Amino acid sequence: MKAEIISVGTEILLGDILDTNSQYLAVRLPPMGIDLYYMSKVGDNLQRLAETIGRAHKRSDLVLITGGLGPTEDDLTREAIALTLDEEMYVDADMEQRLRAFFAARGFSFPERNVKQAMLIPSAQAIPNPRGTAPGWWVEKDGRIIVAMPGPPAELERMWEVEVAPRLARLTTGDVILSRTVKTIGIGEGHLDEMVSPLLKSENPTVGVYAKPDGVHLRLTAKASTQEAARRLIQPMEEELRRLVGDAVWGVDDDTLEGVIGAMLKE
Amino acid sequence: MKAEIISVGTEILLGDILDTNSQYLAVRLPPMGIDLYYMSKVGDNLQRLAETIGRAHKRSDLVLITGGLGPTEDDLTREAIALTLDEEMYVDADMEQRLRAFFAARGFSFPERNVKQAMLIPSAQAIPNPRGTAPGWWVEKDGRIIVAMPGPPAELERMWEVEVAPRLARLTTGDVILSRTVKTIGIGEGHLDEMVSPLLKSENPTVGVYAKPDGVHLRLTAKASTQEAARRLIQPMEEELRRLVGDAVWGVDDDTLEGVIGAMLKE
Repeated sequence: MKAEIISVGTEILLGDILDTNSQYLAVRLPPMGIDLYYMSKVGDNLQRLAETIGRAHKRSDLVLITGGLGPTEDDLTREAIALTLDEEMYVDADMEQRLRAFFAARGFSFPERNVKQAMLIPSAQAIPNPRGTAPGWWVEKDGRIIVAMPGPPAELERMWEVEVAPRLARLTTGDVILSRTVKTIGIGEGHLDEMVSPLLKSENPTVGVYAKPDGVHLRLTAKASTQEAARRLIQPMEEELRRLVGDAVWGVDDDTLEGVIGAMLKE
Repeated sequence: MKAEIISVGTEILLGDILDTNSQYLAVRLPPMGIDLYYMSKVGDNLQRLAETIGRAHKRSDLVLITGGLGPTEDDLTREAIALTLDEEMYVDADMEQRLRAFFAARGFSFPERNVKQAMLIPSAQAIPNPRGTAPGWWVEKDGRIIVAMPGPPAELERMWEVEVAPRLARLTTGDVILSRTVKTIGIGEGHLDEMVSPLLKSENPTVGVYAKPDGVHLRLTAKASTQEAARRLIQPMEEELRRLVGDAVWGVDDDTLEGVIGAMLKE
């Protein structure tokens, strides 16, 4: 399953906020075997948003959208999905009822503007959001899925964990994507790339080379039906890689130089 | 001038690193009067990268790219720009000389793979990068500009400040974009949106409504020939906004609830 993430909000483009939602989602996709191909950020502009969602829906099986579900005029994610899928929005009576009850229970009058948070299109189902007033949208059309979730991280995270991830897990193949990072020091990126050159053609696992402040990292990423099977694909490749690179390897995954040196000093 | 930012790297899509480069650039564009319309993140894949750069070049005056300029096989930004602009890459003899001298001065042998960091296309000029081995590319074609900068923040930031920003400043109209945030509490997003409804149609300054953990923020953004002129556009709009919203306003811009309450307690 090929996925992409779209973050909506002019405040992101102005640099007012750092979009952490897309990283939150990105790290959760590989363990579900979902390949992430693109992340996009777009402002509160109907035409640009619809164009971005439309392209994503055409090229990806799954489009995850965060933001733009508020009650205000510049919240346009619902409108943009309706526009790009050429469907009419309608007010869902049940949802409107629940929304009015939500405000009444807190002793607030209901702002008529919030009615738009009770809207749906024929291809969309509402996703509950007990942490806020904006329900999400689960949209299935043309054999593809669009999921729209709220922008506030607390609302997004609950919706993802409780509602979206379990539903996606039932649809995916069951494959998992597992990564392991081997960290080296003392050999430049270009030299190291030449040394591990025979491995770079491998398709499963793949090998990536990344220059970092603590040396050059080699990332092995495997896709398989279980975590264990993915680990079995990575292991011989890691052994081969260590053979090629030798003493330059100082750690793996979450190891830090400080930690490794500290442990050596204790010995 | 309409701009977009593209961040390159599979490690971003895997969630291994949070892309902070695009926010670094985003906050620096409004003071130069440059409108940012899109941010995209794409992996180390030639076809997807070329497609993303090609679309950006067609729809935006300025495309800022970070990452993918390293010496390794999976660094493909140069190749993708060449592909999308249909130009041939060649090794620039001067640059190759400088690169070899850089390694020699440090007592390292030169990895032949690094030759690709001395490559150019006819439309590209090299941008110096004293903090690393990857020069940037300044590309002018079809009346539009593509700037490719390295991914490591220290290299990107120096290249932006010293090389790219001054050059862009000479090309832009001299307009600046200025934002001011008025922070409110006690009124829900929907109600507040209704209260300030007459202001939401304004095109300069624009008014945006954002729900935050510390209340609802109203952001006024003006474009003008100077900071002072932008401030003069914002001021009457802010006064009108304060008249509509009244006591709900508790601060502006970088004010925090903690700070405001602390100051009240001291009085």
